[in-house]
Amino acid sequence: MAPESLITDLTHGIGPQDVVHGAIALANALPYTEPGIHLALIDPGVGTARRAIAARVADEDRVLVGPDNGLLSLVASDFGGFTEAVDISGSAYALPSRSMTFEGRDLFAPVTAYLAGNAPLAAVGTEIPVESIAFLQLPEPVIIDNRITAQVLYADSFGNLALNLNGGGAADDLLRPGVRVLVETRQRSFRAPVVSVFAEVDPGSPLIYHDSSGRLAIAVNFGNAATQFGLSRGDELHLSPQP
Amino acid sequence: MAPESLITDLTHGIGPQDVVHGAIALANALPYTEPGIHLALIDPGVGTARRAIAARVADEDRVLVGPDNGLLSLVASDFGGFTEAVDISGSAYALPSRSMTFEGRDLFAPVTAYLAGNAPLAAVGTEIPVESIAFLQLPEPVIIDNRITAQVLYADSFGNLALNLNGGGAADDLLRPGVRVLVETRQRSFRAPVVSVFAEVDPGSPLIYHDSSGRLAIAVNFGNAATQFGLSRGDELHLSPQP
Amino acid sequence: MAPESLITDLTHGIGPQDVVHGAIALANALPYTEPGIHLALIDPGVGTARRAIAARVADEDRVLVGPDNGLLSLVASDFGGFTEAVDISGSAYALPSRSMTFEGRDLFAPVTAYLAGNAPLAAVGTEIPVESIAFLQLPEPVIIDNRITAQVLYADSFGNLALNLNGGGAADDLLRPGVRVLVETRQRSFRAPVVSVFAEVDPGSPLIYHDSSGRLAIAVNFGNAATQFGLSRGDELHLSPQP
Repeated sequence: MAPESLITDLTHGIGPQDVVHGAIALANALPYTEPGIHLALIDPGVGTARRAIAARVADEDRVLVGPDNGLLSLVASDFGGFTEAVDISGSAYALPSRSMTFEGRDLFAPVTAYLAGNAPLAAVGTEIPVESIAFLQLPEPVIIDNRITAQVLYADSFGNLALNLNGGGAADDLLRPGVRVLVETRQRSFRAPVVSVFAEVDPGSPLIYHDSSGRLAIAVNFGNAATQFGLSRGDELHLSPQP
Repeated sequence: MAPESLITDLTHGIGPQDVVHGAIALANALPYTEPGIHLALIDPGVGTARRAIAARVADEDRVLVGPDNGLLSLVASDFGGFTEAVDISGSAYALPSRSMTFEGRDLFAPVTAYLAGNAPLAAVGTEIPVESIAFLQLPEPVIIDNRITAQVLYADSFGNLALNLNGGGAADDLLRPGVRVLVETRQRSFRAPVVSVFAEVDPGSPLIYHDSSGRLAIAVNFGNAATQFGLSRGDELHLSPQP
Repeated sequence: MAPESLITDLTHGIGPQDVVHGAIALANALPYTEPGIHLALIDPGVGTARRAIAARVADEDRVLVGPDNGLLSLVASDFGGFTEAVDISGSAYALPSRSMTFEGRDLFAPVTAYLAGNAPLAAVGTEIPVESIAFLQLPEPVIIDNRITAQVLYADSFGNLALNLNGGGAADDLLRPGVRVLVETRQRSFRAPVVSVFAEVDPGSPLIYHDSSGRLAIAVNFGNAATQFGLSRGDELHLSPQP
């Protein structure tokens, strides 16, 4: 349908149904890619009333295509928000034979291909208000008496645990480089320093660092924090800077 | 050897030695791809007397290349069967230095490249009767007194379990949408409804659905049926519609 | 930065921090690829004093880019060694905003892109002596009284265990095809024959073979030797040919 298109596979490494990790991975990656038609698919609601959408962002010539479940919302905010959107759920560009459980193949991919071939947004769906697009609300940390209650947003392929602490806030003031932190989970507690690079701690030791998107994360040098501490997405933990 | 060729990687996600999953994945994918030279490799018999083959199908301009272990046979049937085939085991286009255990690199890839560069089939091997090509016989389900004995063909990357019930048969009459089914495995039993989309059941609950190739499959909404029920390829189970 | 470049992804399948496996995988793969700018990244020392380098090899028009931790050294030896090298740690071609933990994105990829666009080595870094580049010293086997003490270099994705016995040496004389070998690990012992192809042993049985790079390896036919024998990189084992 769009044989001249250059296809760049960003990742197939997001866990099943993990819309939060997908939304963040997309937001982390797109600023480093050329503008284009960006298809993202993590779609646990496939076949339900959730809409399928295609939407243009403000700041660059980019169109996002995917399920209307929040997956596209974080990166859209980084590019000035959506300016124009269509509901493609009933698009004429879907394949004639359409399964109930694989709309990536039967709906999203062909619509994306037509857009890549310069079909206008209005041709592939019906206009919807951009305000109606689902927005992914990440959980907010809670800070009481210098004790931060945070959540694991996702574990990456190294087992590093991204937290809902994305720099710049009050948590950053508490978790300055060099500070030692008591980390308490439901199962156990451990101490970890806030460092700039992994090698500041011994192999096998935990650390807290700003990951490559500026978010605070917990890792184990030469190890896997997710398995070592039994933590995964959604788990709550408490961080207390130690005197 | 064929620098102008466009290479499309279909998947590296088939489990080791899983010829059945590979053959089905190939049959599911190729109808959605452009015609071309299709190399498929799952080759537990590498180095044995099993032949290496290249074969043309009837319905489109497609040539399949791979080990003669049934891997290519299901998709060939979908394209009208083979019309012309060669044994490439001793092909002159193999690399001069050939290992015993990595014919993908040393034999199949270079032969595929020469075919992609428009070498005729006859140039890369010696003609063989298409009837001599190994055919993969999937296990047949058994239905007695409304009780279906089926097998797990493979678990996909979500843990969804594809069964040897591919729609259109007597099993389909028993497993209509809305029917509740008692599923009995060697280890346990559970009940699951036949649904159209995952979201018809609660997160964590099992379901039976037609997957994107029309095959009946068992899944867990927001879960992993393979690990939850301890099932994998080849396992037998019994399905009984409940009144 | 280099939109005309053809990008070939060799693998994302090396385990975290596994410089040895990465260095061997690179050495195994590059002889089968076109010359080019080859970026390799396994970088547990990111952010430390370890240098980032780009270096040209003698035998073909290839430039290797990566961390100076030995990752590039094995393949360089196979291409006649390095002839020219630069330290790119402070390269002007790094992204303006540079994280401490993802130099692949912020330093290595942009420098590689500029090199792919024909920037000369001297433009992307400061010259260093090729003798100063870190060399990866693989552990040497020890042979005493026909008993070989070897190490597992890595487990591949099939669970096959590559040993530090790369053919041509005294170990090869002891481990001729057909010989039965007593393998002793810290946990257990088992017997395995030296074979040419996996199918020489029954499914589920262990075997010793020369892998596709000529290295001796332990596998289980239709199985996973790494999990079956609880072995992973760095583990020591003893091989004794049996009469």
